[in-house]
Amino acid sequence: MLDSDCAGFFADANTLDRDAYIHLDYYLECLGDPRVAAAHFCAEQSTAQWKRVGFSEDLRERFAAKVIDLTILNTELAAFSYGLNPNNAGVSACHVTIAHPHGNFGSRIPNLLSAVCGEGTFFAPNIPIVKLLDIRFPDAYLKAFEGPQFGIDGLRDLLQVYNRPIFFGVIKPNIGLPPEAFSHLGYESWLGGLDIAKDDEMLADTPWCPLNQRSALLGAARIQAEQETGQRKIYLANITDEVDRLIELHDIAVANGANALLINAIPVGLSAVRMLRKHATVPLIAHFPTIAPFSRLAHFGIHTQVFTKLQRIAGFDAIIMPGFGARMHTTDVEVCANVEACLAPMGGIKNSLPVPGGSDWAGTLHTIYEKVGTVDFGFVPGRGVFGHPMGPRAGAASIRQAWDAIVADVPLSEYAAQHVELNAAIEFFGNAAPVNGDHS
Amino acid sequence: MLDSDCAGFFADANTLDRDAYIHLDYYLECLGDPRVAAAHFCAEQSTAQWKRVGFSEDLRERFAAKVIDLTILNTELAAFSYGLNPNNAGVSACHVTIAHPHGNFGSRIPNLLSAVCGEGTFFAPNIPIVKLLDIRFPDAYLKAFEGPQFGIDGLRDLLQVYNRPIFFGVIKPNIGLPPEAFSHLGYESWLGGLDIAKDDEMLADTPWCPLNQRSALLGAARIQAEQETGQRKIYLANITDEVDRLIELHDIAVANGANALLINAIPVGLSAVRMLRKHATVPLIAHFPTIAPFSRLAHFGIHTQVFTKLQRIAGFDAIIMPGFGARMHTTDVEVCANVEACLAPMGGIKNSLPVPGGSDWAGTLHTIYEKVGTVDFGFVPGRGVFGHPMGPRAGAASIRQAWDAIVADVPLSEYAAQHVELNAAIEFFGNAAPVNGDHS
Repeated sequence: MLDSDCAGFFADANTLDRDAYIHLDYYLECLGDPRVAAAHFCAEQSTAQWKRVGFSEDLRERFAAKVIDLTILNTELAAFSYGLNPNNAGVSACHVTIAHPHGNFGSRIPNLLSAVCGEGTFFAPNIPIVKLLDIRFPDAYLKAFEGPQFGIDGLRDLLQVYNRPIFFGVIKPNIGLPPEAFSHLGYESWLGGLDIAKDDEMLADTPWCPLNQRSALLGAARIQAEQETGQRKIYLANITDEVDRLIELHDIAVANGANALLINAIPVGLSAVRMLRKHATVPLIAHFPTIAPFSRLAHFGIHTQVFTKLQRIAGFDAIIMPGFGARMHTTDVEVCANVEACLAPMGGIKNSLPVPGGSDWAGTLHTIYEKVGTVDFGFVPGRGVFGHPMGPRAGAASIRQAWDAIVADVPLSEYAAQHVELNAAIEFFGNAAPVNGDHS
Repeated sequence: MLDSDCAGFFADANTLDRDAYIHLDYYLECLGDPRVAAAHFCAEQSTAQWKRVGFSEDLRERFAAKVIDLTILNTELAAFSYGLNPNNAGVSACHVTIAHPHGNFGSRIPNLLSAVCGEGTFFAPNIPIVKLLDIRFPDAYLKAFEGPQFGIDGLRDLLQVYNRPIFFGVIKPNIGLPPEAFSHLGYESWLGGLDIAKDDEMLADTPWCPLNQRSALLGAARIQAEQETGQRKIYLANITDEVDRLIELHDIAVANGANALLINAIPVGLSAVRMLRKHATVPLIAHFPTIAPFSRLAHFGIHTQVFTKLQRIAGFDAIIMPGFGARMHTTDVEVCANVEACLAPMGGIKNSLPVPGGSDWAGTLHTIYEKVGTVDFGFVPGRGVFGHPMGPRAGAASIRQAWDAIVADVPLSEYAAQHVELNAAIEFFGNAAPVNGDHS
């Protein structure tokens, strides 16, 4: 591209039709003039060759992605980050905001991804380091998306639970138990006070724990627990499977009494989730496998909040995400950005319940509540309920007691003096802070 | 986990049922004893809590992922790679091979991904740096997969082209042309000698270039080009779209004369591709958007060859992949590993045509042929055909002339003296090596 051609890939945001463009923030490291690099970056993700040979035409006005802000952070980096192209010098770091005309691809998740984090983005010349930091959609674009069917209000209405977090628990042992034993654990946890007992994200429809049998047992146990406690309960069945089985598994699980469904969003594919959403009669809840490999590093890949927003527009009513604490390798700022991506207004799209997770037990609830700053979140221990030394009923009770202590504004240790389950949790999880495995 | 519990996550590979386990190679960086870290790593990706509280049971023998090789590369790294957890010291780097019992999840791509590169893999305690380097399947596991319907032999039979590479071209301008103009470019390129004219991976079914109209025009142009040249041709239509439209778009495009279909594998989802494969009547060809964000860094993420193998078992007959040259940020060793992942025997699964791409023109063909070491590859220029100064017919001819020179063992410059299209390509692309944009 000639330097004089670069201008076709720059625009004043105020001159562009707001409804026609999505906005994208990227961190880039490039060789050479950052302005030229940014123009190439836009070309590669839109109309890379903007005229036919021998024709006088210019496709850029309508079809080009355009730089609307370029902030040069550093023009004298000694090298690219992360050891890439180590023989280069004269590296610049930039923050660039791009207006990308969504008419290039439409309201289609796979085509959106191909445009904003595909070959054009990650193979633009002289820009080996790229991180897609954020994405913002005009309401006109969002109109085509169904979004969550229930949202937080709908989930709360199903459970008849208001003004507090929603208490999930991941039934453990996660892999290997037959349906009867597995179901009994879920039942116990509901009696102890969980709102939602869930399958692990790795538990599939296997011969040793078929979904049909598992959901029938847990569906019946859920209804029994509701009758015994007088409270609404949810059995969250994992239907993550091949795409051509999702509808069938939805129907089986729901008919058997599962009243929410877990799907591993990226492994199944966001577009398949959107398909399922059109069919679903119960809330859909996302789990986060395979997001970390492209999001963990500060300056390369795709920021988690991009995927949280995409999971929300794909139709998830709740989004389980890496939460607080060193184990999850996610800064508090990043977790809070993902919570905000669930809760912030987004055109006509309902909100999603954020569920920040990771090594939780009764003692981590207060910190999460403080950091999230609202009761609109889900709390999702695994071991913290099912590894509790007195069993899952006591484990669930310890979580509810921890919340009662927060509401009463009483220190946890003081409240534990009157509550044996909470006391046992503190003694067991609070000292060694074991990270997994055998706690019997 | 107690140190004494670690042994349950180690095994001698010779004692395990070969049919029951997939093998996984990982690079890890960990704190503390690498043996303990590796045991936790296996626990997290399989049965993290292997007994119920109060029960005497051990789910590990059948359900645990097990370390079968642990090679410690370095026990004295000053810090984790890539700036993660900068306050830690005493970091070890290891290569670990794990046998993972596939009965935990079955022959399901989403559940496989959730197990081998999901939460368990990327959030194991004290192991912030992980790269999944390779995956190997026993034939017993592969039996459930359909794999490619045509494979290389089937593609060659469709084209009646043997003993040479398959010549693709990406019609450019990629975004913005109406169907008539777009179709004319494809027609010209077939007359010049392309086997396959393809839609860009970013071109969707949009109002300004609807797939129905585009495929009808290109389908007719393809048949006309076949009649004029006496050679078989392929129009490769991009049907990347929402999952619930794939079957419909397949049927429209094929009825209109598209005789192969392009799908952006990861954005659409590998499982959706597997679904489409069961319906498809023409070859399916993969493009690679959104793989680089997982795979570019040496020590973090997921190696490209893992995705190449998964694209093959999902059913792609050809796999377009990042190829050779500095622009693509992929080492020759990595490109060749991906070529091998397409071609190597894999149980009863057919092979896939490897198509390493990136900034190609007539002058890059010889190098690719030498590096790949076989004629069983696809060559996929974009600009190198459609940005040729004499137009796409001449651009395509220049590619065929370059192959003729290779076969005749004549230097390209010498051959160009008698072939005006090749000569023009060398003058235009060979000197400035422009990377994109306007070449008119």
